[in-house]
This record gives sequence, C-alpha cells and structure tokens, in this order.
Amino acid sequence: PVFPRILGHEAGGIVESVGEGVTELVPGDHVLPVFTGECKDCAHCKSEESNLCDLLRINVDRGVMIGDGQSRFTISGKPIFHFVGTSTFSEYTVIHVGCLAKINPSAPLDKVCVLSCGISTGLGATLNVAKPKKGSTVAIFGLGAVGLAAMEGAKMAGASRIIGVDLNPAKYEQAKKFGCTDFVNPMDHTKPVQEVLVEMTNGGVDRAVECTGHIDAMIAAFECVHDGWGVAVLVGVPHKEAVFKTSPMNLLNERTLKGTFFGNYKPRTDLPEVVEMYMRKELDVEKFITHSVPFSQINTAFDLMLKGEGLRCVMRMDE
Amino acid sequence: PVFPRILGHEAGGIVESVGEGVTELVPGDHVLPVFTGECKDCAHCKSEESNLCDLLRINVDRGVMIGDGQSRFTISGKPIFHFVGTSTFSEYTVIHVGCLAKINPSAPLDKVCVLSCGISTGLGATLNVAKPKKGSTVAIFGLGAVGLAAMEGAKMAGASRIIGVDLNPAKYEQAKKFGCTDFVNPMDHTKPVQEVLVEMTNGGVDRAVECTGHIDAMIAAFECVHDGWGVAVLVGVPHKEAVFKTSPMNLLNERTLKGTFFGNYKPRTDLPEVVEMYMRKELDVEKFITHSVPFSQINTAFDLMLKGEGLRCVMRMDE
Ligand SMILES: NC(=O)c1ccc[n+]([C@@H]2O[C@H](COP(=O)([O-])OP(=O)(O)OC[C@H]3O[C@@H](n4cnc5c(N)ncnc54)[C@H](O)[C@@H]3O)[C@@H](O)[C@H]2O)c1
Ligand SMILES: NC(=O)c1ccc[n+]([C@@H]2O[C@H](COP(=O)([O-])OP(=O)(O)OC[C@H]3O[C@@H](n4cnc5c(N)ncnc54)[C@H](O)[C@@H]3O)[C@@H](O)[C@H]2O)c1
Ligand SMILES: [Zn+2]
Ligand SMILES: [Zn+2]
Ligand SMILES: [Zn+2]
Ligand SMILES: [Zn+2]
Repeated sequence: PVFPRILGHEAGGIVESVGEGVTELVPGDHVLPVFTGECKDCAHCKSEESNLCDLLRINVDRGVMIGDGQSRFTISGKPIFHFVGTSTFSEYTVIHVGCLAKINPSAPLDKVCVLSCGISTGLGATLNVAKPKKGSTVAIFGLGAVGLAAMEGAKMAGASRIIGVDLNPAKYEQAKKFGCTDFVNPMDHTKPVQEVLVEMTNGGVDRAVECTGHIDAMIAAFECVHDGWGVAVLVGVPHKEAVFKTSPMNLLNERTLKGTFFGNYKPRTDLPEVVEMYMRKELDVEKFITHSVPFSQINTAFDLMLKGEGLRCVMRMDE
Repeated sequence: PVFPRILGHEAGGIVESVGEGVTELVPGDHVLPVFTGECKDCAHCKSEESNLCDLLRINVDRGVMIGDGQSRFTISGKPIFHFVGTSTFSEYTVIHVGCLAKINPSAPLDKVCVLSCGISTGLGATLNVAKPKKGSTVAIFGLGAVGLAAMEGAKMAGASRIIGVDLNPAKYEQAKKFGCTDFVNPMDHTKPVQEVLVEMTNGGVDRAVECTGHIDAMIAAFECVHDGWGVAVLVGVPHKEAVFKTSPMNLLNERTLKGTFFGNYKPRTDLPEVVEMYMRKELDVEKFITHSVPFSQINTAFDLMLKGEGLRCVMRMDE
C-alpha cells in the first residue's frame, strides 16, 4: 500500500556518514542492516528472552524514519518511502542506528550480507529456540533458504537424524548438502504428514522447525513432535486469516509450541557473533549463495527467486 | 466404564509388605502413591525433560496391575478393579513400586498426603514449567486447589503481581491467602478476558497457568501472555472434543505454549524433595486442608467437593 518505496532488506554495507547524536557508529564501519531493530532501551531489548524491540520491530506498513516520521528519499521533490527500516535496493540508504549491526570489517560483505535476514532466522530458530540436543531427531518443514539454515543449525547442534519435509520433491537433492538424512513429501501419503513422521520416528521427532508459512505445515510440525519433550518452532509468516487448531491434549502431553522472529537473535548484540561463526569456518554461508548478478540485473534475481531456482542471489552494487 | 473398582488417588501410607523382587521399598517405609508412575527405565524416565513414564503413566481405563494384568482385589470371589494405579479409598491397597514415592518418615502423612496429586501439580506447573522470574506478573486461571497451588508457586518464585481469574467471585477471598493481588471474573466484562488482562498489564502477563479444564480459559490463558517472552502452561484436563484455536501470529510473536502432567515432577525422584520443602516450612500445605473427616464419612467429603466448599478434605483411615 505504501508506494513509491525502495524495497530490499537483506544486505551488507559501509557507513558513509552518521546523523547528529549517533555515537555507536562512525564512517567506515561495516554493518548489516536488519528489518527488526534493537533500541537497547525498551522492555524487550532489556529482556533476555525477547528480540521484539518495541521501537524498531518490523513494520511493513511504515515507510518513514522513526523519530521525525519523514522519508529520507525523494524523486523530483516527492517522497519515496522506506521499507522495513532498511531499503537496501539502493547504493545509498538511510537507516536508524538501531537497525544496523556493526560487524568484523574483515568479513567479506558480499558473503555475510545473507546473514542479515533469512539465514540467521533459520539458524537461530534451531539453535536459540528449538535447541535440539546432540543425537536428537529434527524435522524441518519447508526447504527454502530459511528451512535449510534451520537444518544447518540442527546439524551444528549434532542432530543424528534430520527429516526434511517439502511439497517439492526437487528440494531433497540440495537439502542433502545441509544434513538432510530423510525426506518426506506430504503429497506421497494419504494420511496426514504428522502421522507419517510419528510412525517413522517411534513416537515423534524431538524438535520440529516450520519454515513454510502455511498453516497445515504449522499444525503438522506441532503434532509430529514427541510427547514428554517435543518442541515445535514456527518461523513461517502465516496468512492473516489463518487459524492454528489442535487438540489441547497434544499440549497437555508435554509438547511445547513457540514462534520466533529473526531466530530470536538480538540484531545488534548477537549478529556480530554469527558473522564470527562464519569467520571461524563453523558456519558455511557460501553454500546458500547460488547466484550473483550486478545490480542492473535485479530482474534476473527476481526471476530466479520466483522460479525457486537456487537459494540466494547476491546483487553486486559496484558494477 | 470399569466397575466395580476402588477409587481414590491422593493419599499417604505406610508399606505393609512388598512383592517378590521389590528392593526399593521395605515394610515400614512412608510413601505417597501417585497416579502417574516412574519406572526409571523407559525413554521418558531417562529423559530429563519428561515425566510421562511409558509404562506407568496415567491410564484411567486400566483397572488391573501392570505386569500380570490381574486385579488384586476381590469381593465374594469376583474381581474389583484398580483406579489409576492407586485405589486409595481403602485401608489396604496394592500399588506398583513405580507409583510410590518414598518420603521422609517424620513428615505427617495426614498433611503431606495432599502433595500426591493436585498441590504438586499446580506448584510444579509454575515452578518447573512456567518458571516466572522474580518481580514478574502471573495470571492463574481457575482458583481450585490446583490453581491455588500454582499461585503459591508464583508467590514462592517472587512474582510481584498475581492475577486470579475465576467465574466464581467467592474464590477471591480465599485466593488472597495464596498471594492473589488482583481478581478478574470473566463474567464482569463484555470483552474477552484475555483483552482485559492485556490492558491491565500493559501488553500482557509474563506467565499464565490454566487450571480449569475449560477450553475458553486455555485459549485466554495463552492469548493474555506478553509477546516476546510470555509463557502459558495448560494444566486443566480438557473435554475430549475440545479444540484449541488461535492465530498463528500470536505464536510467531514469541509466545510459548506448553502443557504439563503432575507439574513435570518425576514422582519418585522429585516428590520426596517437595515433602522436604514442607518440612523446611518453605511450603505451607496446611492451608490447603480445610476439612477432615473419618473415612466412614466419605460421602460428606464428596458433598463438600461437589459444593466447592473448602479445598481439601482429608479422610482419616484410623477412626
Ligand atoms: N520469522 C521470521 O523472522 C522470518 C524471517 C524470514 C522469513 N520468514 C518466513 O519463512 C518462510 C520461509 O522463507 P523462505 O525464504 O525459505 O521461503 P521459500 O518460499 O524459499 O521456501 C518455502 C518452502 O516451503 C515449501 N512448502 C510450502 N508449503 C508447504 C507445506 N504445506 N508443507 C511442506 N513444505 C511446504 C515450499 O515448497 C518451499 O520449498 C516464509 O514464510 C518467510 O516469510 C520468517
Ligand atoms: N495436568 C495434571 O496433571 C492435573 C492433575 C490434577 C488436576 N488436573 C486438572 O486441573 C483442573 C483443576 O483442578 P481443581 O481440583 O483445582 O478443580 P476445581 O474444580 O476445584 O477448580 C476449577 C476452578 O476453575 C473455575 N473455572 C471453570 N471454568 C472457568 C473459566 N472458563 N474461567 C475461569 N475460571 C473457571 C471454577 O470456578 C473453579 O473455581 C481440573 O481440570 C483437573 O482435572 C490436572
Ligand atoms: Zn528496543
Ligand atoms: Zn528476509
Ligand atoms: Zn518409565
Ligand atoms: Zn488428583
């Protein structure tokens, strides 16, 4: 509804200048912009448990800067609106200091840029929220970049069995590189996929992470976890009218259901350390980057995304 | 459906004799029988996270001993069935060793008997599952004995505000003794009670514990917790056809939903320590015992329960 606006939110950049009163960053700092910010001052930022900053949390309807409520972009004197506080489809942008994570300047920006949204979201959903134990069984619903990052998290946590679930059978081959040991396509079964998983795993998986945004997958991800200790984590963004329905006995039998934004990472506090995981070679981000094009070919990048080809296409701003 | 049977499951007793091969208990040991057992050998008993023993978990349809599948009670040569492995409305009963917690013999059985079901359930739901932090706000739905024990747990954990929710306005007076600082009767409001609680608490409570068994209270308990960090715990046993419904956005906004049996206490491992909490005067059980009658007046005890008068009526077997 807010147009014209500059889209784009997964990126890396270098600080060109800072506004009045900004002391946390100086020109030359390397930063990752994040769609959900961290003011460090609200109840959420002060809570150990939340990363849903009251001031800077994602708001797709806001097209202006927090503070003066104005846009920083114009064309022929008319405003162009911002997008989720980042607007990174641009060589220069203006971002609230609370939405910028200062990272190690020796980290290659054309690689770690992908850590500023989906990859960290999936990784954190598993490592910070689902928290599988070593040797456990984990189901991942949806094998896009977010789901594969959640899978990477399961592998890093030492899961011994990782079951990928996707409606698209072509997703299995790629998922193997991320630790997928079993693949289930709900379309191949007449019974609900949660029942298939419960039977495959002698009572249910230890953890499930849902990365599809579809309500049937959300319900299945919850109902396939083991009683007593199972934890299901919702990551996919649902349709507004979707309703989550289940028998309360599934809860009473000691299953846990949670959701997360940005993998529960506090962007400014935690993202620099995710970059360090890459620098220490504990986290492979290269395998998520399947394509790279100059910015002028942005429509090629969109076509790849719409066709579901590859995982991430990096756009180079310097060509 | 299983009749005739000996009912009763909240009790304290002394071991009179043990069966062949039983080494964990000897005659004279003081014990609390528990409706859900602990075999110490199954995947649940071996997991730190679960107390839903595969062998001995609650089964209201089973009227016989685990093992040989026979009843231990007869009348005129015909079997009388067991009830949830305990059958404590009786001067003598036969209980699987896995359903007996051995406790401190100096603990008065006519007091600590109430720790063998409802009180530990409510207490553990708060202390072991909801885990409120010091200074937090906790809502308790349903102010029966289980809810008041959950409230006692919130007080012990240092909650600064404890909101009791019950359809019966008479429950507030008693609840004050358990730390209730605010009372909400859903009938006094036209808007859903979850909205009332969210407004009262500037965004939601930190923790909610549902102890009613009614699906509308379960949904309200979940929807009244704060985004970012709120945790709702279901304790009430729902109707079989009940369906839990909510918007998945409530989950995505970092709320957690869980359920628990017996407050996640492992009966044999953890219950002796709950008795010690009473012995050290950290836990007041006397205030839950509002009545006491000889066993011959069991129908008086049932009448009190049905009228909702008082909390627990102890029946004395020695008169
Ligand atoms: N919570 C957050 O902070 C956050 C951040 C980024 C993305 N997201 C959300 O995560 C989700 C995944 O993002 P992505 O970029 O990986 O998307 P994607 O479209 O690349 O991948 C989704 C995958 O799910 C599969 N799928 C769809 N319906 C399914 C079903 N019913 N069962 C099994 N598989 C099914 C698709 O075939 C596809 O492979 C999206 O909903 C996105 O909005 C959430
Ligand atoms: N999960 C377990 O291990 C476990 C163990 C014991 C008991 N329980 C269950 O816990 C529940 C409570 O047990 P109790 O002995 O305290 O019961 P109780 O009947 O004494 O108390 C229930 C209270 O809830 C109130 N109530 C009912 N509907 C309500 C609503 N919609 N909103 C607000 N309040 C409402 C009633 O007025 C009553 O005061 C029961 O469902 C019982 O089966 C569970
Ligand atoms: Zn904040
Ligand atoms: Zn994104
Ligand atoms: Zn067991
Ligand atoms: Zn009971």
